[in-house]
Amino acid sequence: MWDIELKPQSETGLSVQIFRSFRNRMLSGRIQAGEALPSTRELARSLGVSRNTVTEAYERLVAEGYAVTSQGAPTRVADGLRTEPNREETEEEAQSKPADGLPDCAAEAAAPLKWDFKTGQPDLTRFPWKSWTRALREAQGTLSPAGFGYGDPQGYGPLRTEIAGWLLRSRGIEADPSDICITSGSTQALYLLAGILHKEGCPFALEDPSHPGIRTIMQLGGRPVQWMPVDDRGARVDTLEGKPLSAVYVTPSHQFPLGGILPASRRASLVRMAAEGGYYVIEDDYDSEFRYRGAPVSPLYEMDPSRVVYVGTFSKTMFPALRIGFALLPPSLKSRWVHRRTFLDVQSPLLEQAALTLFLRERLLDRHVRRMRRIYGTKRQTLLTALETAFGDSVRAQGEASGLHTAVRFPIGTDAEALEAACRKEGIGVYALTRYATVRAEADRNTLLLGYGHLEPEAIREGIEALGAVYAGIRAYHD
Amino acid sequence: MWDIELKPQSETGLSVQIFRSFRNRMLSGRIQAGEALPSTRELARSLGVSRNTVTEAYERLVAEGYAVTSQGAPTRVADGLRTEPNREETEEEAQSKPADGLPDCAAEAAAPLKWDFKTGQPDLTRFPWKSWTRALREAQGTLSPAGFGYGDPQGYGPLRTEIAGWLLRSRGIEADPSDICITSGSTQALYLLAGILHKEGCPFALEDPSHPGIRTIMQLGGRPVQWMPVDDRGARVDTLEGKPLSAVYVTPSHQFPLGGILPASRRASLVRMAAEGGYYVIEDDYDSEFRYRGAPVSPLYEMDPSRVVYVGTFSKTMFPALRIGFALLPPSLKSRWVHRRTFLDVQSPLLEQAALTLFLRERLLDRHVRRMRRIYGTKRQTLLTALETAFGDSVRAQGEASGLHTAVRFPIGTDAEALEAACRKEGIGVYALTRYATVRAEADRNTLLLGYGHLEPEAIREGIEALGAVYAGIRAYHD
Repeated sequence: MWDIELKPQSETGLSVQIFRSFRNRMLSGRIQAGEALPSTRELARSLGVSRNTVTEAYERLVAEGYAVTSQGAPTRVADGLRTEPNREETEEEAQSKPADGLPDCAAEAAAPLKWDFKTGQPDLTRFPWKSWTRALREAQGTLSPAGFGYGDPQGYGPLRTEIAGWLLRSRGIEADPSDICITSGSTQALYLLAGILHKEGCPFALEDPSHPGIRTIMQLGGRPVQWMPVDDRGARVDTLEGKPLSAVYVTPSHQFPLGGILPASRRASLVRMAAEGGYYVIEDDYDSEFRYRGAPVSPLYEMDPSRVVYVGTFSKTMFPALRIGFALLPPSLKSRWVHRRTFLDVQSPLLEQAALTLFLRERLLDRHVRRMRRIYGTKRQTLLTALETAFGDSVRAQGEASGLHTAVRFPIGTDAEALEAACRKEGIGVYALTRYATVRAEADRNTLLLGYGHLEPEAIREGIEALGAVYAGIRAYHD
Repeated sequence: MWDIELKPQSETGLSVQIFRSFRNRMLSGRIQAGEALPSTRELARSLGVSRNTVTEAYERLVAEGYAVTSQGAPTRVADGLRTEPNREETEEEAQSKPADGLPDCAAEAAAPLKWDFKTGQPDLTRFPWKSWTRALREAQGTLSPAGFGYGDPQGYGPLRTEIAGWLLRSRGIEADPSDICITSGSTQALYLLAGILHKEGCPFALEDPSHPGIRTIMQLGGRPVQWMPVDDRGARVDTLEGKPLSAVYVTPSHQFPLGGILPASRRASLVRMAAEGGYYVIEDDYDSEFRYRGAPVSPLYEMDPSRVVYVGTFSKTMFPALRIGFALLPPSLKSRWVHRRTFLDVQSPLLEQAALTLFLRERLLDRHVRRMRRIYGTKRQTLLTALETAFGDSVRAQGEASGLHTAVRFPIGTDAEALEAACRKEGIGVYALTRYATVRAEADRNTLLLGYGHLEPEAIREGIEALGAVYAGIRAYHD
């Protein structure tokens, strides 16, 4: 009756196999409470294993409470091992789909594309991997073992010092390293800020259009949102006058996705309204490093460091899988931040932080960014030329002086969503602006977003040529 | 009147210095709206710089909206640059302290300690750093640049496969890699689960005593908690019968901090209650790898993989600053998990995930854990011997068969918190059990927790001898 089937070749030891075999029978009710197990000697003989092996299995059954034993008496099945529920289906199981219909950025990739003009993708083939590998090796070799214990939730001290230097060199910001908090990319910074700054009943003000992922973060848990329309000079902050808010999120250096630069007068009113309303402004400076014409745009942060939270990321200047970003916080927010980060995931991994410290200290990022500014500038020019070749004067690129993408306005009447769908069938990934908008303004229906940072010039030319063919086909059909 | 002071040695370029100087005067109101700036020629001459330098500064002032210009007319200060608020102090500023009085684990370190018997600290000096550095180098060298873009929020595929293998070898769990989600340590796994599993008005059931950090995570946002008392066989799950709950959190293999093993009958009722109540059970298997006597304890997960979420971490077996843990999820929870992780911080960094993949594949972690089990076993024995030398029969170590710490019961009437305070003055870090408890049971007031994983045998002996002296002093005072 104890037909236990043992697999001598298994990675699992014999005694564990015996243990599991009994346990499974007990849980499924095939052996009942109080029933005696065979003696260790008897079972060892019938299975052809040593008695020690069986004894070990029995000891474990007893240790875990599956069986009970007492001096001289046989080992018996314990009470109360039933696991079956009293009813079959549960309400919880019915609710196991995502609670909301929010867009999922990561699920964007569908069919394979020949040319994907996705936004926000840096050129990873031109990153100086050798220097980075050297920095990693040096960091790993220099750190003491004790450093790899639990560390500072605000981030590795030397990296915060280097980021302060980088902010001064690249953005003219004079930051105190103790106000800098390292994060797992700017996503985590925004996630934390949304939680810290939320005031019951007060919406977050967001640009419309804006990044769908950021809209989702701010709205998690059902937090309300106040939309600001965007024109070619960025967010219409005047629409916020007198409104009670939790915080305002803006991309003042290069509005995402339309590319406008928030003018000084709008910046000044924003900072004044924030001070009057007792809320903070989140400045997402997601790609200010890549500007091809004119001087860099000043950060909003400089206007009022006590009122503006500056959020930066190394996902575009380094690479996304590094997962390092940071926030430059008004000191009034720091203790709440550290508390939340501690109980969210404690800290970021040490190694990347230490390697980035060296990379910044040796000015390798400065050099890489300078080089990429030229390369991205060339790609941008390739894109603009290709657009002109394919469409002549009929399309207009907007916000094209910086970043890794541009917004392209097609003739009025063009349905960009239909164009996007038609392109996808031909293996071309282009993105209708309305996908980034909540209020789908009539003026925006004819606009596509084209990311070019990650594409080679040849691919840009071919992709735009293919886009031109699809567009011509649609026009011919409608004419 | 335009006494702009230029610093030629500064890292900041001259044109940026001119730009900032004007901008600051505009924002502070020292130059008023409509006022004309000097001509570029005039200013260039007075400052002794090239005219191009001044032109660049003016262009930036115009580009950012600080100044306006029109054909032939001088450049003038733009309107609306006032930033001062209408009132001085804001309500928000008064609220800028942490919202709750919850304990902050990271802030625990106060005065430097000669011997710190902190719990949960692995021995970092004995980690095979050379092999790990090799794995990092190999991983970095093998991955393609494209891999360093945005990746899978569920974690690096090959690592999930290796973790499935590791779970089979170390815990006998047969896991499908597609049910494994990589996290930034178990902290993040618990943070995500608390958010996913929370049902309005239904408390999380937690062990009492338990880890203060985990209590805080579960209670974030004011979520209610139902406490389960703990005896020497783990959580008293019978106290949950019939209660509506969001989820139950348990440490069934080695209750933290008392060390009990949850017996099979309690496990069976827990799983049955969860199925009946439509909730999940979170199994935190935080240090099951280090067991010194008897066979490994079965994971609760095996009893009902559709109802139990298994949470593991590499913080103890590898090192904390690695920030890699994982959850083994019932498929019904996966889409909600991926959605939340995407908008929390997208993914964990790639490099550590890829290096850990190699480390597991080459069985280097298996070897390290086997070796550390011996080393920690020796340390544990050193601790027990030192306790006997210092206290004879009057103290009793509990739950000492596994983990990196033990709970030590002192004679009834000993005030462990007073002992902790007296020890701290002598540079000895010991921790009263009541610090880990919400309901401070009379029976627990005489118990200290002693972590020994990170201490050398010599330090353990000296520290316990010093503890003995402090204890004797307190007793003499009271006698």
